[in-house]
Amino acid sequence: MTIDEEVRAAGLRAKEASRALRSAPTAKKDAALRAIAAGLRANSAPIKAANAEDVAAARKNGLSEAMIDRLTLTDARIEGIARAVEEIVALPDPVGRVEGLVRRPSGITVGRMHVPLGVVAMIYESRPNVTIDAAALCLKSGNAAYLRGGSEAAHSNAALASIVHAALHETGLPRDAVVLAPAAREATKAILGLTGIVDVVIPRGGEGLIRFVAEHARVPVIAHYQGVCHLFVDESADPERAVAMTIDGKAKRPGVCNALECLLVHRAQAPALLPKLMAALAREGVEVRADRTAHPLMDGSVAARDDDFGREFLAKILAVAVVDDLDGALAHIARYGSGHTEAILTERYEHTQRWLREVDASCVLINASTRFNDGGELGLGAELGIATSKLHAYGPMGLDELTTRKWIVYGNGEVRG
Amino acid sequence: MTIDEEVRAAGLRAKEASRALRSAPTAKKDAALRAIAAGLRANSAPIKAANAEDVAAARKNGLSEAMIDRLTLTDARIEGIARAVEEIVALPDPVGRVEGLVRRPSGITVGRMHVPLGVVAMIYESRPNVTIDAAALCLKSGNAAYLRGGSEAAHSNAALASIVHAALHETGLPRDAVVLAPAAREATKAILGLTGIVDVVIPRGGEGLIRFVAEHARVPVIAHYQGVCHLFVDESADPERAVAMTIDGKAKRPGVCNALECLLVHRAQAPALLPKLMAALAREGVEVRADRTAHPLMDGSVAARDDDFGREFLAKILAVAVVDDLDGALAHIARYGSGHTEAILTERYEHTQRWLREVDASCVLINASTRFNDGGELGLGAELGIATSKLHAYGPMGLDELTTRKWIVYGNGEVRG
Repeated sequence: MTIDEEVRAAGLRAKEASRALRSAPTAKKDAALRAIAAGLRANSAPIKAANAEDVAAARKNGLSEAMIDRLTLTDARIEGIARAVEEIVALPDPVGRVEGLVRRPSGITVGRMHVPLGVVAMIYESRPNVTIDAAALCLKSGNAAYLRGGSEAAHSNAALASIVHAALHETGLPRDAVVLAPAAREATKAILGLTGIVDVVIPRGGEGLIRFVAEHARVPVIAHYQGVCHLFVDESADPERAVAMTIDGKAKRPGVCNALECLLVHRAQAPALLPKLMAALAREGVEVRADRTAHPLMDGSVAARDDDFGREFLAKILAVAVVDDLDGALAHIARYGSGHTEAILTERYEHTQRWLREVDASCVLINASTRFNDGGELGLGAELGIATSKLHAYGPMGLDELTTRKWIVYGNGEVRG
Repeated sequence: MTIDEEVRAAGLRAKEASRALRSAPTAKKDAALRAIAAGLRANSAPIKAANAEDVAAARKNGLSEAMIDRLTLTDARIEGIARAVEEIVALPDPVGRVEGLVRRPSGITVGRMHVPLGVVAMIYESRPNVTIDAAALCLKSGNAAYLRGGSEAAHSNAALASIVHAALHETGLPRDAVVLAPAAREATKAILGLTGIVDVVIPRGGEGLIRFVAEHARVPVIAHYQGVCHLFVDESADPERAVAMTIDGKAKRPGVCNALECLLVHRAQAPALLPKLMAALAREGVEVRADRTAHPLMDGSVAARDDDFGREFLAKILAVAVVDDLDGALAHIARYGSGHTEAILTERYEHTQRWLREVDASCVLINASTRFNDGGELGLGAELGIATSKLHAYGPMGLDELTTRKWIVYGNGEVRG
């Protein structure tokens, strides 16, 4: 079999399995999830052994320490993955939930029922925990998962998938509810062409991967582009809050997509706020790249270049710009924002209303840290990522976003005539 | 300017206009819609004159009578288009509606606000009414509309667009809220490549157009494939209802996508029902293509060929097959259905529950005609078409489906820490 044929055959097996999953009872899906969690704990030794092979190869191939860290599985991390699966057990099953059931003038009763999408393909890099997270979220939402992990994690992913398969077998669910794509490079492109088999593809990884998927996909894509997140400190904002929120956004976990990348400060706040802010950022080891107005007010900052705005640093680096007013902040975000997360700190009611209406992003926040754009914080529970494409899912993708809604009609022999 | 540059420039103008539309008050958008309706009525003479040019060219080019009929505008049809616009005025504006606002343990209050998608591109054929329908639905939902009509309707579409532009100008909304793409062939492909400008493309037309769009699109697509709709007459169904529902589905408007294309009859019903049904269908001038079991029971039917199943006739032709039971019907639909509309006629409760859960289609009906899968009948009001792709919209696309939901967060200075 060629890779194309192999990818297609695996896709068809996943599609077949998705038919059984569509109406699988919640209790059965939850039993499989519990068996996965138990399997992870019982098999931490073989998982770590497989992972060690990947890590050794990664070192040999000169991967960065950051990538090796993302790749490495420890007992604590395996326990964390198992707990994440148990958290998914605790979430409500979206499948079968009916919304808006109403009687229509014709006499029919209509509503919309959440149903699984079918086959969800995930294409991702390095972190092997995604294999389990994606399998568990898809399983709970009644979807078959077609997983294409990074080749650098191939041994780890195979070990994790074998635990999933054992759990599916144990609970009487089809093994092909979770399918691993061949680890070959051409597999990604082949998956992207499986129209009529794959219902959606979700890429997770660097911008190169996302662009490759958007370019080659013939199947629908839910994209997770970068998070260039801003905080605008308005004239009326409390300076201490401004410092606290900036530190929270930038310094606590700089490598995540909802981390703050650019601070916009109202001109009237700049002289008093920026020196104080600089001191706090310096204490946290944050490098500041300040625009022409901010730079002289922030001792130890470097002068920002044009391309420091609109940039996702994913590091302890913060761009800072001074704007004239709310309109200036909105214009900056319209130009440089990535539609991910945008926050304002203000006491002016009218500005909060304009912010909510006028900012175009998956999450807009008033007086709260950008870090709250997260499935857990927003109440979705576990998430598969944060979508910045607007169709279907916009923001964190939880279980609901892994379903679609079909119309259901209860009639009594009605015809339209 | 090349066509590519022209298409891109027009897209950027639409995107710029979409920013103003995003927060335009409902009253202003409704005023523009009323002005469009008034403009249509006041300008029926120039509209008909422009349309006559298209019709003359269509005759010269030998287009079919059915296509010429779809292309032709009369006073009655123009009045119908104007009324459809007024019906959109009467629909609630989805923009700004917030759902599920709740307080989270962290103290923030979160919800999801409906916001416009941005720039909606429509690619469609012949029917010039789509120009107004799409412009009006996009306007009401705060989206800029980027319209690429068929070249065979170019004069009609230009005349209709000029009425829209006058109405936008009159109400103080940006002219580029509705943009007509250049009528050149290459324009379609160019639009499909406008990533970052066009937020979604909705193709309406024959299968060739839809496949072309799916093949070449780099922007998200909401596809409207064909409607191969089935009705399953179960063992327990009342035969008179079965006849009434079949006639309603097939004979009243055979050319629409929710028309019945294939009837599945339980084996136990066949001997008594099929002859009666044949007589009724013959009276309505419907050609029956019957499978091996049904054929001898339906005097005047023709023997179905394999490819008569899974086929969208869009004409007074009906495929008929006899199945052993519910499982047989479900298997037939899983194999031949197009995910559009599937109805069952039954008195058995258990079968209704299985039908709702197990049939994979945008609309599943119990004891009601397939013709109810329609925006008006389901309560959406006007629709842009019936989506058979599962992401974002599944079934009729009304105003809500022309929006996305962004997360909004009301905080009080919360940080995650």
